[in-house]
Amino acid sequence: MSQDFIARVNFNEQGLVPAIAQQWDTHEVLMMAWMDASALERTLATGEATYYSRSRGEQWVKGLTSGNRQFVREVRIDCDGDTLLLLVDQTGGACHTGDRTCFDAISLTIAGQ
Amino acid sequence: MSQDFIARVNFNEQGLVPAIAQQWDTHEVLMMAWMDASALERTLATGEATYYSRSRGEQWVKGLTSGNRQFVREVRIDCDGDTLLLLVDQTGGACHTGDRTCFDAISLTIAGQ
Repeated sequence: MSQDFIARVNFNEQGLVPAIAQQWDTHEVLMMAWMDASALERTLATGEATYYSRSRGEQWVKGLTSGNRQFVREVRIDCDGDTLLLLVDQTGGACHTGDRTCFDAISLTIAGQ
Repeated sequence: MSQDFIARVNFNEQGLVPAIAQQWDTHEVLMMAWMDASALERTLATGEATYYSRSRGEQWVKGLTSGNRQFVREVRIDCDGDTLLLLVDQTGGACHTGDRTCFDAISLTIAGQ
């Protein structure tokens, strides 16, 4: 089941796919990070989000050091298979800064819309 | 103002940044696409989402051919500057398939969460 699902993902030339994490009930977009096939497999097997750090070149389990764990309820694949949407239940802040989401700091409002 | 904002974005080695589009009121995650600095500048200037197609190597204005226009109310930059979140007002379906979102087709529920 998981293997069939993973086979539908179009990983990029680095073997990675961007994964957007959204809080399942409030619908906040929490963060975006990358997964390789193995991180996705681990996420599906454990129910906790596992990502791949491009800078460190290794997998990381969300919340393993911070305690702000991210439980994954559902994974969706977009129409061309190259982006994932994770519906999650995030404990505490999703951002390494402690903010609830990674998008809380800098914003620009466009006038007239 | 726009230039200061754009200067805070960390574009990747191809000069691109992923942009997540979220319906501002229902909070649906609609799609993810890429922008170069010029597409972001055009988005901020016009208030309509302009992306960069990696396959075609050119900018495209969302909805220009389909009529399903995407009006941008706010742009947020994430904590490390390498992902954008657009709060938009999407006319009709955001997906080229006609679906409301690009994440409507394939999903896997993780048991026990």
